[in-house]
Amino acid sequence: MINQLIEKLTQQGFDDNQFKTNAEDLEFFGKDHTKHFEPNPNIILFPKSTEQVQTIIKTCNELNLVITPSGGRTGLSAGAVASNGEVVVSLDKMNKILNFYPDDRMVEVEAGVITKNLQNFAEEQGLYYPVDFASAGSSQIGGNIGTNAGGIKVIRYGMTRNWVLGLTVVTGKGDILELNKGMIKNATGYDFRHLFIGAEGTLGIVTKAQIKLERQPKNLTVMVLGVDEFANIMKILANFQSKLDLTAFEFFDKVAMNKLLATGHVQRPFESDCPFYALLEFEAPYEPIMDEAMAVFEYCMEQGLLVDGVMSQSIAQAQELWKLREYISETISVFTPYKNDISVLISHVPDFINDIDKIVNDNYPDFEVCWFGHIGDGNLHLNILKPENLTKDEFFDKCKVVNKYVFETVKKYNGSISAEHGVGMTKKPYLNYTRPDDEIAYMKQLKAVFDPNGIMNKGKIFD
Amino acid sequence: MINQLIEKLTQQGFDDNQFKTNAEDLEFFGKDHTKHFEPNPNIILFPKSTEQVQTIIKTCNELNLVITPSGGRTGLSAGAVASNGEVVVSLDKMNKILNFYPDDRMVEVEAGVITKNLQNFAEEQGLYYPVDFASAGSSQIGGNIGTNAGGIKVIRYGMTRNWVLGLTVVTGKGDILELNKGMIKNATGYDFRHLFIGAEGTLGIVTKAQIKLERQPKNLTVMVLGVDEFANIMKILANFQSKLDLTAFEFFDKVAMNKLLATGHVQRPFESDCPFYALLEFEAPYEPIMDEAMAVFEYCMEQGLLVDGVMSQSIAQAQELWKLREYISETISVFTPYKNDISVLISHVPDFINDIDKIVNDNYPDFEVCWFGHIGDGNLHLNILKPENLTKDEFFDKCKVVNKYVFETVKKYNGSISAEHGVGMTKKPYLNYTRPDDEIAYMKQLKAVFDPNGIMNKGKIFD
Repeated sequence: MINQLIEKLTQQGFDDNQFKTNAEDLEFFGKDHTKHFEPNPNIILFPKSTEQVQTIIKTCNELNLVITPSGGRTGLSAGAVASNGEVVVSLDKMNKILNFYPDDRMVEVEAGVITKNLQNFAEEQGLYYPVDFASAGSSQIGGNIGTNAGGIKVIRYGMTRNWVLGLTVVTGKGDILELNKGMIKNATGYDFRHLFIGAEGTLGIVTKAQIKLERQPKNLTVMVLGVDEFANIMKILANFQSKLDLTAFEFFDKVAMNKLLATGHVQRPFESDCPFYALLEFEAPYEPIMDEAMAVFEYCMEQGLLVDGVMSQSIAQAQELWKLREYISETISVFTPYKNDISVLISHVPDFINDIDKIVNDNYPDFEVCWFGHIGDGNLHLNILKPENLTKDEFFDKCKVVNKYVFETVKKYNGSISAEHGVGMTKKPYLNYTRPDDEIAYMKQLKAVFDPNGIMNKGKIFD
Repeated sequence: MINQLIEKLTQQGFDDNQFKTNAEDLEFFGKDHTKHFEPNPNIILFPKSTEQVQTIIKTCNELNLVITPSGGRTGLSAGAVASNGEVVVSLDKMNKILNFYPDDRMVEVEAGVITKNLQNFAEEQGLYYPVDFASAGSSQIGGNIGTNAGGIKVIRYGMTRNWVLGLTVVTGKGDILELNKGMIKNATGYDFRHLFIGAEGTLGIVTKAQIKLERQPKNLTVMVLGVDEFANIMKILANFQSKLDLTAFEFFDKVAMNKLLATGHVQRPFESDCPFYALLEFEAPYEPIMDEAMAVFEYCMEQGLLVDGVMSQSIAQAQELWKLREYISETISVFTPYKNDISVLISHVPDFINDIDKIVNDNYPDFEVCWFGHIGDGNLHLNILKPENLTKDEFFDKCKVVNKYVFETVKKYNGSISAEHGVGMTKKPYLNYTRPDDEIAYMKQLKAVFDPNGIMNKGKIFD
């Protein structure tokens, strides 16, 4: 069947270097940042245009072959893993920045453009692309759109969704749709653009996007604060937010801080050793804003909400402080963490964290737990670290038992089992803790409209 | 059939004052702000809860009755007009503000809450609901969501879509869905919330919404500028936007200004009589921002981009200047304007306006044309005023001929035939100037998923 595919595509103008079938490439392009599933695709294809993507999709429909769309494969839910003989369609050769519209502050890009390259392009134009996260150096725009990527600036700038003014997609049926064409205002029927954003490639393949850019932030200033008890973090957030426009409000716990300090790559921000830390950021182009920030800091200190703190006095110092948050993921990766990416309303965060802490302590008093996350958006990363005396499999098996309790608690608080990592395959068994059965039934019917043969990223989100 | 409906609903707990069938009410609740279609519904229903909306939809499915959802009926595309024996479902009795979550800056409201009441509620909490437009005093949140309402602050705050964190809907099939539940981050499959936003009630009825609020703007300052030629307006926009965060950038022409002045309700902002005017607004909580604004103003003056201008020195003066823009719609309504609400990329606006001006002048040199709009979003309101010597019908017939040329020009520039007014019935014949046939075909299939019997707002958007 794969030979037939190669033959048909060759007849339609594909050349040899648009196919890869050797074992090494199949392994490399068949997996993402997860380690739960063995990669096992049949072939990797490298289209160079929207029309070639269309040709691939139409041909795969004819031959009844399943497609896995493939971007930077930095996902954490196995949404881009091909483990079942799939045709992987890599967007690597569609990596051009196409057109820039200065008056619209908009840029049109191919889906394979790396996030960091888009950020750099914006900067060269004196503008800013505000969606940012740890894997920005290798993730691709198409993948960001597929999972509606979030990251560290959501509190001010929102998710990827907010920055997509237009999309070119090829549906699972093989139609090319140009959705919304870059307009700010367009009230002409259903906005399919927002359906494809976050669909994890199950409805079709995004080939181009029109992305809105923003003015550059001015004099970004960072504070790191040490806190005695978790509930105070939320009070600190409310106090700062009432006076300043925050561009970030992150938190992490003592476990994260101690692991970070042990690497020697970061410095202790202040003397006090605290159970919790908050990192916040704001623009301070005018002197009175800095004064306001200091006033809130002092008020929080007087109220006993915080123990210690530091404010950046230069861009270099701000960057240094950011490392405390940015290096966490990499630092804890050596402990084979079992990751959960969950969200609830900000109002529910303190009770929710108490409940989860209790569950983990009751069931696994010997497990070390590391909390961090985008607390200003209600988004928490719960990381359970592997004890040395357990194998990876033993550990993951035990974690899966905790999972049930964690997700029941998410459900109790009307939260999300996947805030920004998507569903893919790893969250699929738990989807109905957040989306009830009738919503999942509607999802399946909707998929059938755009992908009647069910070939697009089969086995992801739902079965 | 209507008697059967009343009987069945009464059996299920509806009381007498939840039905209206007298001619006056049928007329009143059967129409919106358009005048193209005669209202002719069969009954008006007033549910008091999401469950009662569900009961209505299920019963109408059984009896094969068509439903027209009804909010404040301030629409300009006949999306809420019931002209064919429909069951009108008014949300008037579902007008409660339910829950406020201060830490999330979020409020949960019923769909029948009037926009202005939501704005006032936000203000009482020291917060701000930024979606604002001329009909905010009578439009309802549910209707705003149905058309993804825009208005005068979109350049800074975006459309209604940006402020909807969660929706409760009853689908055309009769299922109650609670979509996204107020979360900022939730990556668990297709986001149906965004499908119902802008669907004009054709997929189901929105009964509740979780709405994000924003901090209040600080020291809003308004400038009105007089300009010699249209292209300069776009250059002025670019200059101001490169230095300031604009909260509004509106424009209007000499025809609008002269009609306004003739009413005696506004004052001339400055001596110079100009062909075009821009109104811009920004927050100026700090002195250097005001200095920056003055510097841009002077630069534009030096460059010959503007002829005259004025900047507000107080809130009262800012409000006075806003009247120049806000009173236009009402002022020209006596001339029975033929309204077009179109949008293109900002980059294309100058060429687009030239093309349209030529079309109107070539075809109808005796027609007076009034331009105004949200130019900072690429959204233009083209109003053709009725000459006294033509009847309404003669005039509208002639306008429909121009329509074709206008919409062909919209298509040439990849624009939208309805930027913020929706499609309803008045734009339905022109939908495929913006949405190609295959997109419309997908829309129909998608509607069939949520509304298999096609009873929800039948005849709106598409047939």
